Amino acid sequence: MTQKKSYTLGEIASFLGAKIIGDDQCEITGLGTLSGAGPGQLSFFSNKAYIDQLSSTQASAVILEEKFAERSATNLVLSAQPYVSFARASSLFAPKPLVSSGIHDSAVVDGDAVVAATASIGPHVVVEAGANIGDGCIIEAGCFIGADVRLGENSHLYNRVTLYRGVKIGANAIIHSGAVIGADGFGFAFDGERSIKIHQLGSVDIGNDVEIGAGTTIDRGAIEDTIIEQGVKIDNQVQIGHNTRVGEHTVICGCTAIAGSANIGKYCVMGGASGMVGHLQIADGVQVSAMSLVNQSITEAGVYSSGTGQMKTSDWKRAVVRFQQLDSMARRLKEIEKTIEED
Amino acid sequence: MTQKKSYTLGEIASFLGAKIIGDDQCEITGLGTLSGAGPGQLSFFSNKAYIDQLSSTQASAVILEEKFAERSATNLVLSAQPYVSFARASSLFAPKPLVSSGIHDSAVVDGDAVVAATASIGPHVVVEAGANIGDGCIIEAGCFIGADVRLGENSHLYNRVTLYRGVKIGANAIIHSGAVIGADGFGFAFDGERSIKIHQLGSVDIGNDVEIGAGTTIDRGAIEDTIIEQGVKIDNQVQIGHNTRVGEHTVICGCTAIAGSANIGKYCVMGGASGMVGHLQIADGVQVSAMSLVNQSITEAGVYSSGTGQMKTSDWKRAVVRFQQLDSMARRLKEIEKTIEED
Amino acid sequence: MTQKKSYTLGEIASFLGAKIIGDDQCEITGLGTLSGAGPGQLSFFSNKAYIDQLSSTQASAVILEEKFAERSATNLVLSAQPYVSFARASSLFAPKPLVSSGIHDSAVVDGDAVVAATASIGPHVVVEAGANIGDGCIIEAGCFIGADVRLGENSHLYNRVTLYRGVKIGANAIIHSGAVIGADGFGFAFDGERSIKIHQLGSVDIGNDVEIGAGTTIDRGAIEDTIIEQGVKIDNQVQIGHNTRVGEHTVICGCTAIAGSANIGKYCVMGGASGMVGHLQIADGVQVSAMSLVNQSITEAGVYSSGTGQMKTSDWKRAVVRFQQLDSMARRLKEIEKTIEED
Repeated sequence: MTQKKSYTLGEIASFLGAKIIGDDQCEITGLGTLSGAGPGQLSFFSNKAYIDQLSSTQASAVILEEKFAERSATNLVLSAQPYVSFARASSLFAPKPLVSSGIHDSAVVDGDAVVAATASIGPHVVVEAGANIGDGCIIEAGCFIGADVRLGENSHLYNRVTLYRGVKIGANAIIHSGAVIGADGFGFAFDGERSIKIHQLGSVDIGNDVEIGAGTTIDRGAIEDTIIEQGVKIDNQVQIGHNTRVGEHTVICGCTAIAGSANIGKYCVMGGASGMVGHLQIADGVQVSAMSLVNQSITEAGVYSSGTGQMKTSDWKRAVVRFQQLDSMARRLKEIEKTIEED
Repeated sequence: MTQKKSYTLGEIASFLGAKIIGDDQCEITGLGTLSGAGPGQLSFFSNKAYIDQLSSTQASAVILEEKFAERSATNLVLSAQPYVSFARASSLFAPKPLVSSGIHDSAVVDGDAVVAATASIGPHVVVEAGANIGDGCIIEAGCFIGADVRLGENSHLYNRVTLYRGVKIGANAIIHSGAVIGADGFGFAFDGERSIKIHQLGSVDIGNDVEIGAGTTIDRGAIEDTIIEQGVKIDNQVQIGHNTRVGEHTVICGCTAIAGSANIGKYCVMGGASGMVGHLQIADGVQVSAMSLVNQSITEAGVYSSGTGQMKTSDWKRAVVRFQQLDSMARRLKEIEKTIEED
Repeated sequence: MTQKKSYTLGEIASFLGAKIIGDDQCEITGLGTLSGAGPGQLSFFSNKAYIDQLSSTQASAVILEEKFAERSATNLVLSAQPYVSFARASSLFAPKPLVSSGIHDSAVVDGDAVVAATASIGPHVVVEAGANIGDGCIIEAGCFIGADVRLGENSHLYNRVTLYRGVKIGANAIIHSGAVIGADGFGFAFDGERSIKIHQLGSVDIGNDVEIGAGTTIDRGAIEDTIIEQGVKIDNQVQIGHNTRVGEHTVICGCTAIAGSANIGKYCVMGGASGMVGHLQIADGVQVSAMSLVNQSITEAGVYSSGTGQMKTSDWKRAVVRFQQLDSMARRLKEIEKTIEED
């Protein structure tokens, strides 16, 4: 199905492999939330907190589970996973990139680089010797593709992305503006007077179907490679230190800081602005809440947090004073328990 | 008043609409702090902690409130808001950008873009089809202006700023190098095996008089727009998630991470490296202290904090152990109180 | 010694000024960890936790202290500082940049800039009037060198680095992609209705031998300069506010946020994602642990922390509730102690 301005509900249902209740000729021109959608828009219902909106929505159609079908009077698309179906439908309405294949005149592509004929190389892009850019790739304006980089087919680099020499990236990557993949890991040996640079001789190896957000940095390994496995999704301004491994399908929210040599499992979720110190082992299926620090290895799946909740600053200042007395409080409590027991 | 190397104190006072005590012919060549300023420099006094410096300053003139006029023997500029007047005066000494209007030969501007004749488009800039750049805009080297972007008059984009397709920005914007406005929000639906991308179909809508720092990222909305209202000031390396609204004149300090769909009021201040989880409502006039996490909606103006203050690590480790025993400590305390009461 | 694909152990020892036990003709083609190295690779032993690997390593040679020489059967390079020697050896295997001196045709260099004949200016670089680029500098693709910048000899700017006008950087700098040096400090005076910009008239002054990571931002001073002294090493995505001073040989790990006017001593270490509020004095030799907030000046060397360790979220939620009751708990504890004492 090529991109159009609108689709009939029947076309959408067919794209999703879903059944319809209602008018399959209903014209859908866009997407909306249950409360925000108007005529011509398709919405979805997956969070029961919004069930009251199901009867009042102005959407022309709603994707939902069959068991809720009676709760709505509009056209329905039935799905066992309405949010997933909505995500798939969103691809129909995404604007296609304004590019054509070929190399822009202002790009500087080394004669020893290989660029697939179906790839698009935008203005002011630099591609160094030995780089290999696969079929259907879109490299937007101002990207830098270092020597010997491998970029798999159908990958899309938005403008101003940097791939340092030797970085390997699989197929279907989406990398947003300002991301930097393969800069030197932060490694120094202190000789008593100054920090001596440890040259970072490894690279970065990224699997298929990975998305990387704007301004995110992933450092190359010191000796071996930093590894991002397939299906990993990384938000904006994340920092991933050298020689870290991020397991398949793990999700890392914005501004997370991961130090070097972390070994993170599959299907983990790192909450926004969370942090992880170096050399930790994190099991599959671990979730870390926003702004939490992981400072010890985690051996079982589960949800982990650190920090304190927000308070009025006036109250908080007192709590902080007490936090700093906490060990002494604990000892005094113990002492009292002993005194009482002896009585 | 056009920019010069120096001004008489009279010219400055006239620019500020302020009265002078002293020599209005005194030549001012720059600005300085009370303690650091020398002859030819203009300073200001607004923080009473520095009142002793008022008599000893070497500044040729000082901006202050009239009631402190007797405390200084130098030339004086009277202002009810000395720090504000100093800010205004600073504009006189700021170097003017080294640009002239017109489009640099190396820029790539689509024939279907509209660039005002008085705008300046620097080297290696890309402007895509349908973009509209207003009068007096300065677009420095290497910026990327996506399709259908609207940029209001007298806006200044320093080098290497990215505006993704469809982003709308008002007049008088200042955007620093490396900022990325309009990258995809971080939205996925998990189907049990992998994360399915939710295409981000909204945009970013930024009001007049907004400043955005270096490396800051503001994501486009999933369905509706991310909104930054007029007068908002955002520091470096801030991340603002999709569909967030930031109210008028709110100030966001560096490295702050704001998750999606936050609704932040007017005249708030987010301290440096603070964080906010998604879908919260924050009242007008809320201040959040540095590195605090906001994890619940805030309904009243006031100052809020989280975290613990710094400690020697040796002491801190004991406090952390106790923190992890805190619920048990609280129960034991309760138990003791009961025991004592029963006695 | 020019770069080669391999070296004899004798050549490496001579480069390090070290003694060998074993075969000085042994061919070394790369580096490895004790556990990961294979034949042809050089490793090192400095952390006693790995002493068991010393006998089993497959490395062709190991750098270690003489006193451990008996623990290994492979070729040995003796060093009082094995990790430092390994760092020095790593320089032999680092790929040389693929550049030659001269200015790329697509670069835009102002006629009033001075570029040393031995410097290399890459594609799409912009160098403004009055800039001075020293001998042997490498300026990679897409960098922006503002007016009147001074860049010392043998400095290497990876692609897409921004130096705003007037920034001064010493010799041997390494600056990674996306770094922005000299953007405006975040300074505003609030007039009761809106934030009035304080134009940032200072600059940034960086000493020799400084490394700056990808996406890091260092703001120019408001009136005086922001100062980074010699030998400082700064990781990725660090933010340094205006008028901060960072003392010699201090190390700042990734994602650290330092507010304005901090005065940080020599030989400090700021852990990853740590933060510091403005206007603090930090003594020489202070170490701050990961994600800790420094909110008070520190007058003695030592290790400092804040925050709480990670917990299962279910337990953590209870601890947070108690944290918010901590002041009341402390008062109740005091009360009980009084009651018991009176008994």
